[in-house]
Amino acid sequence: MRLLVIGGIAAGLSAAARARRIDPNLEILVLEKGDAISYGACGLPYYVEDRVHSADELIVYTPEYFRKERNITVRTGAEVVEIAHARREVALAGGERIHYDRLVIATGARPHCGAITGTDQPHVFRLNTLADGIRLKTYLAEHKPRRAVIIGGGFIGLEAVDSLRRNGLGITLFQAGKHLLRREDADLTNALVGHLQRFGVKTRLSERVPAIEADRVGDTPCDLVLLAVGLRPNAEIAATAGVEMGRTGAIRVDDRMQTNLGGIYAAGDCAEAMHLVTGRPAYIPLGTTANKQGRVAGANAAGVRERFAGVVGTCALSVFGLGVGMTGLSVEQARREGFSPVSSRIEARARARYFGGKSTMVELIADKSSGRLLGGVVTGEQGVAGRINVVAAALHNRMTVDEFERLDLAYAPPFSTVWDPLLIAAQQLVRQI
Amino acid sequence: MRLLVIGGIAAGLSAAARARRIDPNLEILVLEKGDAISYGACGLPYYVEDRVHSADELIVYTPEYFRKERNITVRTGAEVVEIAHARREVALAGGERIHYDRLVIATGARPHCGAITGTDQPHVFRLNTLADGIRLKTYLAEHKPRRAVIIGGGFIGLEAVDSLRRNGLGITLFQAGKHLLRREDADLTNALVGHLQRFGVKTRLSERVPAIEADRVGDTPCDLVLLAVGLRPNAEIAATAGVEMGRTGAIRVDDRMQTNLGGIYAAGDCAEAMHLVTGRPAYIPLGTTANKQGRVAGANAAGVRERFAGVVGTCALSVFGLGVGMTGLSVEQARREGFSPVSSRIEARARARYFGGKSTMVELIADKSSGRLLGGVVTGEQGVAGRINVVAAALHNRMTVDEFERLDLAYAPPFSTVWDPLLIAAQQLVRQI
Repeated sequence: MRLLVIGGIAAGLSAAARARRIDPNLEILVLEKGDAISYGACGLPYYVEDRVHSADELIVYTPEYFRKERNITVRTGAEVVEIAHARREVALAGGERIHYDRLVIATGARPHCGAITGTDQPHVFRLNTLADGIRLKTYLAEHKPRRAVIIGGGFIGLEAVDSLRRNGLGITLFQAGKHLLRREDADLTNALVGHLQRFGVKTRLSERVPAIEADRVGDTPCDLVLLAVGLRPNAEIAATAGVEMGRTGAIRVDDRMQTNLGGIYAAGDCAEAMHLVTGRPAYIPLGTTANKQGRVAGANAAGVRERFAGVVGTCALSVFGLGVGMTGLSVEQARREGFSPVSSRIEARARARYFGGKSTMVELIADKSSGRLLGGVVTGEQGVAGRINVVAAALHNRMTVDEFERLDLAYAPPFSTVWDPLLIAAQQLVRQI
Repeated sequence: MRLLVIGGIAAGLSAAARARRIDPNLEILVLEKGDAISYGACGLPYYVEDRVHSADELIVYTPEYFRKERNITVRTGAEVVEIAHARREVALAGGERIHYDRLVIATGARPHCGAITGTDQPHVFRLNTLADGIRLKTYLAEHKPRRAVIIGGGFIGLEAVDSLRRNGLGITLFQAGKHLLRREDADLTNALVGHLQRFGVKTRLSERVPAIEADRVGDTPCDLVLLAVGLRPNAEIAATAGVEMGRTGAIRVDDRMQTNLGGIYAAGDCAEAMHLVTGRPAYIPLGTTANKQGRVAGANAAGVRERFAGVVGTCALSVFGLGVGMTGLSVEQARREGFSPVSSRIEARARARYFGGKSTMVELIADKSSGRLLGGVVTGEQGVAGRINVVAAALHNRMTVDEFERLDLAYAPPFSTVWDPLLIAAQQLVRQI
């Protein structure tokens, strides 16, 4: 019985490791098209910044480790170009064909450059794979570029703004839509634009870049371009094999990570995930979800029923010291999903003044008719991740604002105020319901 | 219609303010036996440390503020010595009698010194009221004591250890029981004892102090003693008036904060609170609970039905930079409450190594038969309050460990690791269920 896994980063290796833990006798083979496996892609901006000095530091496990310690074979440089499910075979780029009994597709995602021309020039980069990171960092060292254009104001774009700015580059950030971080939240975008400006970064919203030229992007001269545009699932070989895609364009899966084809599972950035607030599949590619989905896919592929609970869309980033945490739906998203959203936005000290407490912003969004909490945003320099995670836990449990307001949260002056900012926001929101 | 509130700190003033918001016409009178009102008692250790320079900085609102801005009369130095409920009257120490229609008892708590003799000497202190703090700080300045004994290893005791040590005093901490922080958790106690030792503090566990002498406590010479023993509710005048006490010795209340006597409410450190994990009333006097209970008491006293949801016992403190967060039940408590507790304890990095991530300890406790999460402890230097609050939210929602393990928590290298330490602990615990 052979389990074949396509993809050797987060989801693929989580699947392989989990399957091995369940079944010591399964033959497990992982095929990774790149040279490196098991790296923390979320660390790439910090590798470029040189906070992480060596690419090796981002690598968690080697193929050697998997072979020796887990009895899992990992082949790098092995690109699958076809899945022939009727014969239970995949074909590699070199022509080799490999049989499988169970298959986990963990092919990840890639930046979606759309109609932008000139993306293949030597001064144009992506920050999606370890190889991308190494290529960019080498270029920085060898060519010492001075002016960068970053295309895309999502997480990777903003983290790269921070990394490259700290390397001394002048930065202009282009964002095709009018909001940053893919959240339709004008206040959050305004706050971020102002924050970036204080660090000398220009932000150009609602500007779609048609072409990258050798020395400029539109009217902006530059000697380095980073494509940090939105991700699109690497799902073509799956689609060709008859694997069904969902409405989002990613692979449709059930809560056991099964695709429509028997014995084929999908996990990570190529797959959808059930959004627990909307009750509908969403495409929110994140490392945390990839790891969780991979484990579930591996368990089921190894014959144990496990369920992926779904996501609430929790994420966080830090840009020039400002933390941003988000979960659930924005007001705009909530409205589009058929809710009647109301929201409160408060500023309060994150901890006691005499413990250096700085201002933190908390926004909570709820459904006016049911009182159910739908989402939240926390920004500030202190306690951002902890607070957004409390909101995430509330969303998992479908708490109402009324219930949320009563949470017994910790208080001590080094950590909080006696009414935690989360509860202050909830008190304000309760009055609107 | 007059609402009378006995006590002008957290619960009492929360009740008065909430009642005023609901009913602009209610006559509201607050009687406080001390000189100061509305101060943050949790800040007292930091006032003693001189991180907070002036006692005024701990005061949130003055009687003047309440009179002018809220139309609430606050009398200080007004000690109630009797409640005559049949006549709806209270008697003050000076003999004055005051009528009420509704009464909120928010008389707080005091250190319970038991049989310790010598507690009334000039070098013996408490740290319960603002007056206590001022007296201690004045003594430190005037007498420059060099060796302190602290009796009681609960929250106030440990925070005072930190404050006094930072003032240069040599410290010996006596704890009558064998555990610190009133949590039957030998590992936590050992970790704390080791941590205190690194800062030159001696801890003497399982040593009941019978007497305080002029220059020593037992075999330990000292020139200052702080009584930080457990709190006991100030409920004598309530009891004498026929207000029923619960099994814990504090005032028994329903979820609207009503006592057994019609029109009398109780809130804060003199009252019980429903513990949502055990389903039974508990006595866990904390400022957060006092504020919440006060609001509910005030609302109901003003004629609006509101419910206090109960507590899960969440608390946090920092001692010499080590944060400790706790919620729910310890293994020992859980066993005594009839659960079959299992627990996992893990150490993991609180965030990415390259963001200075330090080790954090997470313990989770669950019931083996139901899988329900019962409690948790988080210690470390980073992210302690945020993580314990996620566990607290889980306890409010009666989550199982299985559900908790699937939480969609935020990840970015400055804040966490891709598997948050909370989820690592949950993964370990799931295997035991």
